[in-house]
Amino acid sequence: MRTDLALERNKAQGQTRGVQQSDDQRITVTTMHIAEQQERETGIPQGTYVTIDVPEYRHTPSEFPARIIDHGTKTLQSLFSQHRVQNDDAVLVVGLGNRHVTPDALGPRVVDDIVVTRHWGRVEPSWSGYRIVSACAPGVLGITGMETSEVVQSIVEHTRPRAVVLVDALASRSLSRVYTTIQFSDAGLSPGSGVGNHRKPITRAVLGVPVFVIGVPTVVYASTIVQDTLDAIERIVRARTDVSKDVLGILSSLSSEQRRTLAREILEPTGDDLVVTPKEVDQFIEDMGSIIAQMLNKALQPDVIHMNPLMKTNS
Amino acid sequence: MRTDLALERNKAQGQTRGVQQSDDQRITVTTMHIAEQQERETGIPQGTYVTIDVPEYRHTPSEFPARIIDHGTKTLQSLFSQHRVQNDDAVLVVGLGNRHVTPDALGPRVVDDIVVTRHWGRVEPSWSGYRIVSACAPGVLGITGMETSEVVQSIVEHTRPRAVVLVDALASRSLSRVYTTIQFSDAGLSPGSGVGNHRKPITRAVLGVPVFVIGVPTVVYASTIVQDTLDAIERIVRARTDVSKDVLGILSSLSSEQRRTLAREILEPTGDDLVVTPKEVDQFIEDMGSIIAQMLNKALQPDVIHMNPLMKTNS
Amino acid sequence: MRTDLALERNKAQGQTRGVQQSDDQRITVTTMHIAEQQERETGIPQGTYVTIDVPEYRHTPSEFPARIIDHGTKTLQSLFSQHRVQNDDAVLVVGLGNRHVTPDALGPRVVDDIVVTRHWGRVEPSWSGYRIVSACAPGVLGITGMETSEVVQSIVEHTRPRAVVLVDALASRSLSRVYTTIQFSDAGLSPGSGVGNHRKPITRAVLGVPVFVIGVPTVVYASTIVQDTLDAIERIVRARTDVSKDVLGILSSLSSEQRRTLAREILEPTGDDLVVTPKEVDQFIEDMGSIIAQMLNKALQPDVIHMNPLMKTNS
Amino acid sequence: MRTDLALERNKAQGQTRGVQQSDDQRITVTTMHIAEQQERETGIPQGTYVTIDVPEYRHTPSEFPARIIDHGTKTLQSLFSQHRVQNDDAVLVVGLGNRHVTPDALGPRVVDDIVVTRHWGRVEPSWSGYRIVSACAPGVLGITGMETSEVVQSIVEHTRPRAVVLVDALASRSLSRVYTTIQFSDAGLSPGSGVGNHRKPITRAVLGVPVFVIGVPTVVYASTIVQDTLDAIERIVRARTDVSKDVLGILSSLSSEQRRTLAREILEPTGDDLVVTPKEVDQFIEDMGSIIAQMLNKALQPDVIHMNPLMKTNS
Repeated sequence: MRTDLALERNKAQGQTRGVQQSDDQRITVTTMHIAEQQERETGIPQGTYVTIDVPEYRHTPSEFPARIIDHGTKTLQSLFSQHRVQNDDAVLVVGLGNRHVTPDALGPRVVDDIVVTRHWGRVEPSWSGYRIVSACAPGVLGITGMETSEVVQSIVEHTRPRAVVLVDALASRSLSRVYTTIQFSDAGLSPGSGVGNHRKPITRAVLGVPVFVIGVPTVVYASTIVQDTLDAIERIVRARTDVSKDVLGILSSLSSEQRRTLAREILEPTGDDLVVTPKEVDQFIEDMGSIIAQMLNKALQPDVIHMNPLMKTNS
Repeated sequence: MRTDLALERNKAQGQTRGVQQSDDQRITVTTMHIAEQQERETGIPQGTYVTIDVPEYRHTPSEFPARIIDHGTKTLQSLFSQHRVQNDDAVLVVGLGNRHVTPDALGPRVVDDIVVTRHWGRVEPSWSGYRIVSACAPGVLGITGMETSEVVQSIVEHTRPRAVVLVDALASRSLSRVYTTIQFSDAGLSPGSGVGNHRKPITRAVLGVPVFVIGVPTVVYASTIVQDTLDAIERIVRARTDVSKDVLGILSSLSSEQRRTLAREILEPTGDDLVVTPKEVDQFIEDMGSIIAQMLNKALQPDVIHMNPLMKTNS
Repeated sequence: MRTDLALERNKAQGQTRGVQQSDDQRITVTTMHIAEQQERETGIPQGTYVTIDVPEYRHTPSEFPARIIDHGTKTLQSLFSQHRVQNDDAVLVVGLGNRHVTPDALGPRVVDDIVVTRHWGRVEPSWSGYRIVSACAPGVLGITGMETSEVVQSIVEHTRPRAVVLVDALASRSLSRVYTTIQFSDAGLSPGSGVGNHRKPITRAVLGVPVFVIGVPTVVYASTIVQDTLDAIERIVRARTDVSKDVLGILSSLSSEQRRTLAREILEPTGDDLVVTPKEVDQFIEDMGSIIAQMLNKALQPDVIHMNPLMKTNS
Repeated sequence: MRTDLALERNKAQGQTRGVQQSDDQRITVTTMHIAEQQERETGIPQGTYVTIDVPEYRHTPSEFPARIIDHGTKTLQSLFSQHRVQNDDAVLVVGLGNRHVTPDALGPRVVDDIVVTRHWGRVEPSWSGYRIVSACAPGVLGITGMETSEVVQSIVEHTRPRAVVLVDALASRSLSRVYTTIQFSDAGLSPGSGVGNHRKPITRAVLGVPVFVIGVPTVVYASTIVQDTLDAIERIVRARTDVSKDVLGILSSLSSEQRRTLAREILEPTGDDLVVTPKEVDQFIEDMGSIIAQMLNKALQPDVIHMNPLMKTNS
C-alpha cells in the first residue's frame, strides 16, 4: 500500500511521537520529527515533516489560497532557518515529474512560475536585497534516459547552490488527501517515491547541501482501493455476531504478498501503474502549482516586496 | 457498476443473441444487434453495435494503427450504408467532452484532425467528388451552461446535415478494455453515458437524422474496483471447503444499493467522480484521437485519394 | 493597412467628432460615438466605441490588472444599460478565434474562465440574484467548415439570450497597441475583422439582439511594417532641403494598390498571413484572457459577491 | 539584419567557395565548408553546413516528410562519420528554447519524441545493437536563471556522451525560408544565435566533444522587413531614369547604425523582440518537430529496425 506521506506511514506504524498539531480555521498544520531511531523503526527517513491539511479545499477552493500560501511560506522559512540557510544564500528549485503526464506535472508547473534571479547579477550588478534563485525541470527517466538524481547532481556541482528545494507529485494512501494536503520536509527524496518513481536518492548525502521537499498527493494507487475494500469487509464480518469467524481467518491469514497478488489479479492487465484521480486533475494541478509557486517566491525573497511572477521574462 | 459498452451490459444481462465475432490476428471485431424486445429486456438502446478489440494495443501500440483504421473505416461505411447515407450526403462530426479534462478530451481531439469541406463549395465551386463535412466540439455543460444536446440540435437545424457522427470518451466496466476497445453504433447517445455525463439524449428521435457514435473507454469508475474486490473475495471463500459459508451469505445478501453504499464509504470523500486510469492518459488520448480521425476521414471521403489532415487550414 | 480598432480607423479618416477622453494614472479611456452619417464617411460601423489604453502594461504588467478590470467592468455595465440589458437578462458570451493559433486564441481562452449559470436553474431552482449566462467557443471556419456567424446564430435562435458578448483577437495598425489596448463596442462584428477573418457579419441585424464586442489587438500585419517604412522615408526626404523632391513624387505617386503590391513582393511568398508579434504571445494571451474573463464575470453578475471562476465545474 | 543561417550569411558576404548543391524533385541539399580563413573573413564559425530546402513544403506539407526524413538521416550519418562518431557511441540530444514560446519551442518538442535508451542497459542487460541515447530540454535563461551552456556542460561532464546534438529554432533573413529550411552543422552554437538568444557558446571547445546542430528558421525579425523595404525603394528609384538620384544618396548614405535606428523607431516601443511569423506557428512547430525527431531516431539507431517513439515510456 504505497504512500509518500510520512504522516500516513507513521500512523501505519502506530507511531505518534514527536507530532504537534495546530488548527487555524479548517487548516491543520502538523509537525513531526523523525529521529534516527524512529527511522530504523518506521523506515521513514530522518527529518522534520510539516503537513498542511485543508480537507475542504476541494469543495471550496477559492476560500483558501491566501492562507495556504501564508502557512507554506512560514513553514519553508522555518525549515530554511533550521538548516541555517540565510536570506541571501543561493537556492535551486527543482520541479520533478513529467509535464506530459498530468497527475505527475506538478513540479514542472511550479518551476514555470518561480521568479529566478541567478542571471540578474550580470544584468543589474548594483541591485541587492534579493536571493540568487535558479530553477529547472529535469524531466523523467523515460524521456531523458538519465536518472533525475544524476541531472540534479550535475547542476548542483556546477552551479553550487547553498540549498535545493524539490517539488514533486506524491501518491497517498487515502483519497481524502488528494489535492488537500501539502507535505514539507528537509529529508530529501528516497528511491521509489513520487508519482514518477525516482530510482536513486536525491538527498543531502548525495548533493552535499540541504534538500527540502514540497509534495502534494495527486493520486492513490488503484491497488490501495482493493486493500481498502478487503479492510471494509473484514470490519463488516467482525461486526456481525451471527456468523462463524472462519472468513476472518481467511482474510487475516492473507499475507501482504497474497494481498498484493489479489490486487494484481483484480487490476490486470495494466498492473501497478493504474491510479485513481478525480477527473478534474488538470485544473487541480494548475491551481495547486500556482499556490506552491507563490509560497516559494515569498519564502525565497522575503525582503523584496511585490516580487511577481510577471517579472519573469521568457527569453 | 457503470459501463457505456453495450457488449459489457449485454454480458451482465446474460444475453448473447445476435452476436457475431470475427478474428484477424489479435484484433477481434464483434457485431451485436439489439432489437426492440432486447432493448426492453437489457436496457441497451436498440441498434447495431460493432466493437473492435485490440487487447495488445496497450503494450505494442505501434503495430496496430493501420489495421485498426482499416477495420474502423469498413465498420463506419457499413453503418452508413445500412442507413442509406450516400457518399455525397453531408455529415456533421461532433466531438463530445471537455478538452481540459484529459480522459474526457477524446472527442475535441478528434475534431481537430477531421478534414472539413463544407466551406470549400464556395471557394472552389467546380471541385466535386467529396462529401460535405463539418465538425464541432461544443464543450460541456459546466463550461458552456448549455446541454450538449441543445447545441448539437441548434447546429443540425441550421446546417441540415444528412447524418451526425458523435465521438465520445466512455467509461468501461473492465480495466482491460481501457484504450484497447472502440465501439461503433447507430444508436445515438443516451443520458448519463460518457465520461462527461450528458443529461439529455442525442439520438435520431431528437435530431431527425441518423446518429452514429464512436466511443473509446478511457476510464473505469473507482467504484468498479471495489465491486471487483468483493467478487474476488466471494470466489475465494467459495473455493475453500474448510470454512462455513456464512460469509457468503453476508456478501451475497448485500443488495446492489448496499454495495454502492460500501463503495461510497470506501471512496469518500470525493465520491463518484473518482476514475481509474493508466498514468499515461495524455499519450493514449493523443494516439487514439489520431487513429479515429484517420478512420473517419477515410470513411467520409472514400472517393478522394490522399485526403490529408494537413490540408486543413487554421483560419 | 488593416486595423480592427475604430480609433485608428477614425484617425486615418481625419475624423475627431464625438471623442471624449479621461485619464486615470497611466490608463486612458476614450469614448467615441459613430453616428449613421459618420459610418458613411468613415466606414466604421455605427455605434459606441470605448477604448482602454494602458501603454505601460507590457513593461509592468503586474501593476495594472485590478484597475483595468475596474474600468472594463464599468464600461460593460454602461454599454449594457444603454441597450437596456437588465441585471437579470440572459447573456451569451462567445469566444471567437482558433484556440490552436496562439495570437487568435484570446476568445476561447476567455470562455474557459466565464462563470456560466444557465444550467444552475435546474440544479438549484430556489437560488436567485444571478444572471443566466452561457458561453461557447464555436471554433473557426477552417476547423469546423461552418461560418462562425452561422453557429452563433443557431445557438442564439435555440437558447434565446437577451444579448450577446463577442470576445475576439484583433489586428492593429500600430505595434504600440498590441496587448496594451482593449476595445469595447456595441457595433457587432463586420466581415473581415479579427485575426481569424470572419466572413459574415455577427451583428444585431443578424442575431436580433444587441451584440457587444470586446477586442484586444494581438498582432500587426507584416504589410503594415512595410507601409510604416515607406512613411518614414518620406518624412526623411521631406526634411532634407538639399535634395530635389523627385523621389517624393515617386513615393507619393504610389497608389494604395501599388503600395500593397510592393508589400506583397517584399513579404513573398507567404503573403498576407504574416503577422508581427512579440515573442511572448503565449503569456500575453494567458494574462489578458484572465483579465477579460474577470471583468466580464463582474459585469455580468454585479449582485453576486465573490463570484469565482473556481466555482466552475468541468463535467 | 539577423540571420542564423550560414548560407544567408555567406551570401551577404559575397562568398561562394566550398558550396555544392544537389537537387531531388523540389528538395535542394546544399553543402558548404567554412575553413579557418573563411571564418575570419565571414564571421561564420568554421565547419560543415548542410542545408535542406523544401520551398513548397509550406503549401503541400503532406508530400514531403518521408523524403525530408531520408535526406536528414543521411546528412546526420555523414556528419557523425566525419567526426568518427561510431554507431555505438553514446549521444546526448539537447532541445534548446522555451517550450512556452511557440516559435521557440522546436527543441523541447523534438526531445519529447526522441527514443532514449541510456537507462535500458540496466533494465535489459542482454539487449545489444543500439546506441546509448539520452535527451534533455534544459529551458531558457529567463525561466531557469542558468545559462543553457552551463546546464549542458554540467550534464555532459556527468554523463560523458561521445557527441552532442543540439536542436534549436532559428531566425532567418528571408521569409521564404521560414519552415522550409533545415540547417545541419558540426559547428556548435555561438552566442546570440537562435530565437532564444543564448549568451554563451555551446561548442566542442566548451564541451570537449563534437557538437552537431539542427536548426529550423521559425521567425524573421521585424527589423528585417524594414530593411527589405528600404532595399525595395532603392531598387525602384534606381530603375527610374526620370528622377535625380539625390535620394539614392540619402538611402545609400544611411549607415547600418542609422538603418538600425530607423528600424527601431518604426518598431517602437517593443523593439527588437518583435518577430514576423505565419499565423499557423503552432501547427508548423508540431509537424517539423515530428519530422526532426524521426530523422534523429533513424540516424541514431541505424541498426535497429522499427525503432518507434511509442516505445517511449513516460515514467
